[in-house]
Amino acid sequence: MRENHPFGLQTLPFGSFAGPDGRPRVGVAIGDHILDLTAAWPALSGSDDGLFAAGTLDRFLAAGPECWARVRQLLTHWLGEVSERGRVATFLSLASAHTMLLPFEVADYVDFYASEHHAANLGRMFRPGSEPLTPNWKHMPIGYHGRAGTVVVSGTPIVRPRGQRRTADGDIQVGPSTRLDIEAELGFVVGVPSTMGTPVPLSRFDRHVFGVCLLNDWSARDIQAWEYVPLGPFLGKSFATSISPWIVPLAALEHARVAPPPRSPRPVEYLDDTGEAPWGLDIRLEVRLNGTKVSEPPFAEMYWTPAQQLAHMTVNGAGLRTGDLFASGTISGPTPESRGSLIELTWNGEHPLRVESGERTFLADGDEVVITATAPGPYGTTIGLGEVAGTVVASPESKSLDDSAAPAHSTSRR
Amino acid sequence: MRENHPFGLQTLPFGSFAGPDGRPRVGVAIGDHILDLTAAWPALSGSDDGLFAAGTLDRFLAAGPECWARVRQLLTHWLGEVSERGRVATFLSLASAHTMLLPFEVADYVDFYASEHHAANLGRMFRPGSEPLTPNWKHMPIGYHGRAGTVVVSGTPIVRPRGQRRTADGDIQVGPSTRLDIEAELGFVVGVPSTMGTPVPLSRFDRHVFGVCLLNDWSARDIQAWEYVPLGPFLGKSFATSISPWIVPLAALEHARVAPPPRSPRPVEYLDDTGEAPWGLDIRLEVRLNGTKVSEPPFAEMYWTPAQQLAHMTVNGAGLRTGDLFASGTISGPTPESRGSLIELTWNGEHPLRVESGERTFLADGDEVVITATAPGPYGTTIGLGEVAGTVVASPESKSLDDSAAPAHSTSRR
Repeated sequence: MRENHPFGLQTLPFGSFAGPDGRPRVGVAIGDHILDLTAAWPALSGSDDGLFAAGTLDRFLAAGPECWARVRQLLTHWLGEVSERGRVATFLSLASAHTMLLPFEVADYVDFYASEHHAANLGRMFRPGSEPLTPNWKHMPIGYHGRAGTVVVSGTPIVRPRGQRRTADGDIQVGPSTRLDIEAELGFVVGVPSTMGTPVPLSRFDRHVFGVCLLNDWSARDIQAWEYVPLGPFLGKSFATSISPWIVPLAALEHARVAPPPRSPRPVEYLDDTGEAPWGLDIRLEVRLNGTKVSEPPFAEMYWTPAQQLAHMTVNGAGLRTGDLFASGTISGPTPESRGSLIELTWNGEHPLRVESGERTFLADGDEVVITATAPGPYGTTIGLGEVAGTVVASPESKSLDDSAAPAHSTSRR
Repeated sequence: MRENHPFGLQTLPFGSFAGPDGRPRVGVAIGDHILDLTAAWPALSGSDDGLFAAGTLDRFLAAGPECWARVRQLLTHWLGEVSERGRVATFLSLASAHTMLLPFEVADYVDFYASEHHAANLGRMFRPGSEPLTPNWKHMPIGYHGRAGTVVVSGTPIVRPRGQRRTADGDIQVGPSTRLDIEAELGFVVGVPSTMGTPVPLSRFDRHVFGVCLLNDWSARDIQAWEYVPLGPFLGKSFATSISPWIVPLAALEHARVAPPPRSPRPVEYLDDTGEAPWGLDIRLEVRLNGTKVSEPPFAEMYWTPAQQLAHMTVNGAGLRTGDLFASGTISGPTPESRGSLIELTWNGEHPLRVESGERTFLADGDEVVITATAPGPYGTTIGLGEVAGTVVASPESKSLDDSAAPAHSTSRR
């Protein structure tokens, strides 16, 4: 029935799950099963290097591209060869039986802003009467640092943030956000560190970056709009960022590589990927709100590639650490139904969305958002990226000062 | 001769130094000596809790205010009582014999913008013709996340960052920054974590924050000016942030607490410290460039206190982790000679400073910046905060596209 199951043999993503004793174990997803790599690695490879012993990906991420390739090759052999089934069976169990954990310790978290459609849409809403894009936007991938300590794994409840906002009348209010939004993004996970003072060129992208996850950059638009000039988003974003539990290796996305959209003006030298095999990626996302599909954001439309983002992030000599996570920015395509945030999908709340559970502008308490994605694999197969899901829970002192948000509903479809 | 030696018994700051085998050890500074607490703690206290065994402060920071108080009390006894001198002597050595290390693992790094004088000066330079302060500035402590992975200990060479800038003619250039600056700040070190979803009120500041360090937020003004709209400072700051090696406990600053400047409008409830013992601090900084004192920034002038910054940073439910570091923002007083950055001291490079080694607008390769600070202690004593120092080294491919920066000089005075 699901021949192209997202976690086919061509995908082999890595994650961390809670073992029977509650301690983390490294797993590899295959079909609807998890291979317990913390147990399988010494047993099947005969290695005593403890690569997966800690139960999280940190050590494996740091081990670098030759190690990543060797482990992937062995996994393909163990899980693909009929003759290995007996040896492997003892390490497999149903994924549904397990709780997934944050797969690595997030070092620094950076969020970019690389969709021209998204940046232009927000510019039109936030700075009406000005050019939609700021003058720097086509010269560099604009980004900022976010809060690493509040990156959480898919399924973690999202407490509605409180904060300051200014009303249209100029009043200052404090209370739970009334404009809680999502941003559908991809996250890129750095494995190999770099030396402070030494930039990482475009050509070295896949020597440092291990893989990709789905990311929901929850955003409180009322808090953000009031705070963000002049130092950028802060509390409007820092309360929570969700990532998918499975990190898909770049090696699985070989067939998803595509040329990015044409860039004009031509980027400066350290960002110019004209001569490189570019890192545009044909990854197609789907966003569901309480079960209703509300958007299909296309990553292939992104103006700046993750390789350009990495080159930019380090051009000033900033060093990379194992576990650095950088996100693409909201993925919005050119059409209304391919926008990656509610503020764009509802055009600043003017045009509510119809979902199974009612009308929505921004998120109500109890709402569940699920983002999934797929990419082309070899021979017409599909690479799945799994999902990142989160449900909004009421602010603990939920005395809302403004009831413009849709009323809460208490049941979630999934 | 130096009766008020900054590291008198009233200070007792904590740091980490390289032991003879190169591994980190926790030290406490007393006069010009270091007490090796990694060795002394089990021997003198009889405790086998391993509190300082790892050689960094992380475990001690997490242990919380009762533990901090108990350790300080024991240290005061051991180092203050004549009868203890024999027991203690074996764990003391000259500080000058040791290399100091980064004292804790920086979790998230946040930089605020809490000096009204600094914010207004920069507003006048960057947004001429507009109000110097943005409309939100007096309603909340404006801040943003910086790069935790490039926080380095005092003495680490600072490689001149490269990056993009736009000239006055609108040309885009890439090269070493020609407007490399400093920002004299204090950093506050979080010990006790908080739960995601639960704000930390003003009254709980000293239950979470352990102590204070000096901080130099190196800034490339040319890179910053071109990149920072709309998402805030990124590469103009992320290449390096230096902190002093000694973390001074809040407990040592009891006599430095002062009322902050009057605030108008009155801050919203979660920021209103009217009824609290406020956390203004009479800490006086000195900034030296190649040995010449160029500024005396007064922390007591800061509009927002660190307690207000912590309350703001968590009001949205963002959790704290052990090792979170938040900085005050550039400390600038009302007078020209109390400004905490070169861009203010030279008024955007228009009025060069005379220092022993020549004239300076922004930093030249080889320049050394040293920031020190003191605060009042009990009985007219002085609490020293030590120093944060750094020397600028040339960008590795230092083919400057613009020679407006002062010529490099190769010797440093200190």
